[in-house]
Amino acid sequence: MNKTKLVIVGGVAAGASAAAKARRCNEDAEIVMFEMGRDISYATCGLPYYLSGVIPERKDLLITTAQFFKKRFNVEVRTRHEILSIDRDKQKVVVRNLATGDISEEAYDRLILATGASAILPPIPGVDFSFVFTLKTLEDTDRIYAHLKNKKPENAVVVGGGLIGIEAVENLVRKKTKVSVVEFMPQILSFLDREMAEVVHQHLRHKGVNIYVSEKVTGIEKRDGCGWIHTNAGRELPADLVIMSVGIRPNTKLAKDAGLRIGPSGGVEVNEFMQTGDPNILAAGDCVESLNLVTGKPMLIPMGSAANKQGRAAGANAMGRRIAVKGFTGTVIVKVFDLAVAKTGLSESEAVKEGFSPLVTYVLAGDHAGYYPDAKELQIKTIADRATRRLLGAQVVGEKGVDKRIDVMATAIYNGMALDDLLQLDLAYAPPFSAARDPVIVAGAVGQNFYVGDWIPITPAELHEKLARGDDFLLVDTRTVRELKKTGIIPGAIHIPIDDLRDRFSDLDPEKETILYCAVGLRSYVGNRLLAMKDFKNVKALTGGINSWTYPTEPFHS
Amino acid sequence: MNKTKLVIVGGVAAGASAAAKARRCNEDAEIVMFEMGRDISYATCGLPYYLSGVIPERKDLLITTAQFFKKRFNVEVRTRHEILSIDRDKQKVVVRNLATGDISEEAYDRLILATGASAILPPIPGVDFSFVFTLKTLEDTDRIYAHLKNKKPENAVVVGGGLIGIEAVENLVRKKTKVSVVEFMPQILSFLDREMAEVVHQHLRHKGVNIYVSEKVTGIEKRDGCGWIHTNAGRELPADLVIMSVGIRPNTKLAKDAGLRIGPSGGVEVNEFMQTGDPNILAAGDCVESLNLVTGKPMLIPMGSAANKQGRAAGANAMGRRIAVKGFTGTVIVKVFDLAVAKTGLSESEAVKEGFSPLVTYVLAGDHAGYYPDAKELQIKTIADRATRRLLGAQVVGEKGVDKRIDVMATAIYNGMALDDLLQLDLAYAPPFSAARDPVIVAGAVGQNFYVGDWIPITPAELHEKLARGDDFLLVDTRTVRELKKTGIIPGAIHIPIDDLRDRFSDLDPEKETILYCAVGLRSYVGNRLLAMKDFKNVKALTGGINSWTYPTEPFHS
Repeated sequence: MNKTKLVIVGGVAAGASAAAKARRCNEDAEIVMFEMGRDISYATCGLPYYLSGVIPERKDLLITTAQFFKKRFNVEVRTRHEILSIDRDKQKVVVRNLATGDISEEAYDRLILATGASAILPPIPGVDFSFVFTLKTLEDTDRIYAHLKNKKPENAVVVGGGLIGIEAVENLVRKKTKVSVVEFMPQILSFLDREMAEVVHQHLRHKGVNIYVSEKVTGIEKRDGCGWIHTNAGRELPADLVIMSVGIRPNTKLAKDAGLRIGPSGGVEVNEFMQTGDPNILAAGDCVESLNLVTGKPMLIPMGSAANKQGRAAGANAMGRRIAVKGFTGTVIVKVFDLAVAKTGLSESEAVKEGFSPLVTYVLAGDHAGYYPDAKELQIKTIADRATRRLLGAQVVGEKGVDKRIDVMATAIYNGMALDDLLQLDLAYAPPFSAARDPVIVAGAVGQNFYVGDWIPITPAELHEKLARGDDFLLVDTRTVRELKKTGIIPGAIHIPIDDLRDRFSDLDPEKETILYCAVGLRSYVGNRLLAMKDFKNVKALTGGINSWTYPTEPFHS
Repeated sequence: MNKTKLVIVGGVAAGASAAAKARRCNEDAEIVMFEMGRDISYATCGLPYYLSGVIPERKDLLITTAQFFKKRFNVEVRTRHEILSIDRDKQKVVVRNLATGDISEEAYDRLILATGASAILPPIPGVDFSFVFTLKTLEDTDRIYAHLKNKKPENAVVVGGGLIGIEAVENLVRKKTKVSVVEFMPQILSFLDREMAEVVHQHLRHKGVNIYVSEKVTGIEKRDGCGWIHTNAGRELPADLVIMSVGIRPNTKLAKDAGLRIGPSGGVEVNEFMQTGDPNILAAGDCVESLNLVTGKPMLIPMGSAANKQGRAAGANAMGRRIAVKGFTGTVIVKVFDLAVAKTGLSESEAVKEGFSPLVTYVLAGDHAGYYPDAKELQIKTIADRATRRLLGAQVVGEKGVDKRIDVMATAIYNGMALDDLLQLDLAYAPPFSAARDPVIVAGAVGQNFYVGDWIPITPAELHEKLARGDDFLLVDTRTVRELKKTGIIPGAIHIPIDDLRDRFSDLDPEKETILYCAVGLRSYVGNRLLAMKDFKNVKALTGGINSWTYPTEPFHS
């Protein structure tokens, strides 16, 4: 083997993966890994859970140590070292020892940039108060932990309802802190479509969290020994603890200064072998941009799972291998108290933006057979390309079995499956694990019903618009009186229970546009079929039923 | 629509699905569904759980009723009716009313056979004792339930360790019954490979279940007011309750007598549209044979999930549609006390039988991040076609997250994915749900390591054979002293902890075949790489490590 000198900048997920893999590809290489922080390879994704004690010990977060890396992989680790610049011509980096301030140079044959991403701190008055934090690094977490312990804050505000923000919310509530979220978008978890996010809003409120959407923080103030958040809605929220989680930004300064290309998404541009334009420099992890396999366009995937894969490939390829990272479907999951909330591929709004004409379906079904104990409902939204049938994306929200369905969907999307082909999957069935018709299978069946012309869906937004426009059509609620009393009826609808429809359809006008709805979409589909076969010219069914109807209803009196 | 007359024989999973779907395709059809039992559409898969009270009420098992089918779908249901014969020329069936004994005829335009399967009752002395049962129908279950209630059996024997047998075992143990299993094969759950079944054997024994494999029941005796089971090993087991679950057989007599083709697997032969050779007769569910998508050959899939899919297609196609059931990957899952045990595709032994040269990998990993509470280890075995890389099968055993991984594998196999391509999947990652490297991703990485030549595996069986033959090679245990003391060492191995290998390899002979092993395979892979790069000519790593070693070890003294 050759004595390649490999320098790695960054020692958390991508950097540590790269170092270990590089060693397994070249026993004789000299490998040096620099890390600005005190620790390497810690569990970034576990940080919020350490705050609440769900992860009880700080040492649980430390996946490995510099000592272990030396011993197992003969990798020299230099923590608290910052790389200041790269000299691509001379193939060396300039390094500052953060402990001593000493500056030195380090030559390389190959360089891997695993510089990660940083939390964005918006320039608003008061962000430098001692009770205002970001939550990105272990050191951030240590500071918040100490603040929680010493100050026992009564009120916390999380600014930004993204993944990290929402994980912070749950863990602060566990610490008996009263938590508010301020989000400048109209919803939290912006990767979800609006009506799916609404389920999460409701759950958070049910857990006592205040959510203020479409509001921007304008300043942070300290008054009477207490912190206060001000928003552009004129709101004033008490806050002894503020976590700013408005987003992260790839750390690309080193790469940029060295003249490497930064892609349109803001990450370092790399090919599928994690190579930058410079044949001796590779990059991996949160600092790079990745290929979105659905759109074919670059995107940022700041996930530990991506960083591990990319670091592994970069480490191998730095040693002359050709390992590809083909791309990502953009899979995301987050625990929100009792819910799991997940997405893969494109959301409906993303699909529209990408120029697709999406077919949207909703399925509400148990995670396992209803007759076996502890079954919980989960909701699946699928987005398909109407023209080609290709599954573009899925969102799943529920208490149990969410991760399973999103992983099946991610695997389906990776393989370019058609929505209706989901019906063909041979998914594992036994009552404790699934239903005879798994929710994924049902989604496939619903898709097939559409493509054979048996089911003509209308989305909640479309129906709402028709009602607002005052279109001339008949709206029929096919549920039971009991259900109607519970949720109310959509204004303007008449009530015909599904099992009465066969006897009563002759009272209706087959020439008139007729829209049926029920709880989740099964009965309206049955009714859609019945009326269509009785020569009703224009019948539709509300996809997702009342369950996906986020607009008002009115009380029902039988 | 036309007034097609559809007759359906059988009203449980496939039959009921067919009836409901047929109605949604033809409002004007006349649909008559005959069922021999008293109930239709009950939860066959839930029956064992009702015995123990996990499913508390009998009515929980009744998914729907004849009344509901009439009301919702205008389907006429005749329970306690047996179809005696089919006259294909005259397009009618001969029916016996089991309540009255009356015999009549029923004409059909289309006929769907959903006759299911029956439990096999082997012709051994004593099977007709009142304490000997099969467990296939709701009526079987009622009888066992009454026996448990009235006789409070102390000792039960389950004959046959298949899916139903093992589910019965767990539920009888919950009723405080002392349970023994007698299985004539060398292992229970014969769909698994031997070493994976061994994990289940151990778990069952740990739960107090006696397991007697490679033993055949020769007779059942009643003596001194107690039942006794005799086996060909001369064993005598007390049994106040015997459940015979040695297998099921498709009910094909009607089809056979009518001259329809029975396939090589023993089920009614149908095409992907569920059509038999007679254009007016379709068949679905446990009575048909299905296409195995991995082998391209027919097989029996007696699963509720398959019956639902096939019934739906049969119902539609009987009304002139063309809905295909493409086939199955043979996915199976079963709960065994705290374990979930699952398989999809081919086992290693099935792959060999099919003429593949299988590449076998094992992964032992947490269901989610180890630093997040309650992570449990699960074991994945993958079987790939060595030549083409195609994933052929997977087996997963563990306490949590098993269903998720098997469903991802089933989706991967359905799509013809290569083993190493699993590495590319973008699976959902957050600490409560997965690890940064999901076990499925690890399986893909292991496969890639093999295909690029970085990892040369040897299976436990191959190593065992080499040892037995007395081959000249060096066997190295790379684990820690503590681990060695816990499990013992493979006889003949020397001990070099992985982290000492870099300093000590020069004492070893690079010309000699060297086989490394560790706990699960990670460290032996690292050592495999190190030695290979130090010009060792022939290095291998034991796949699955000591964890998959089912042969003896000897105590280790440091």
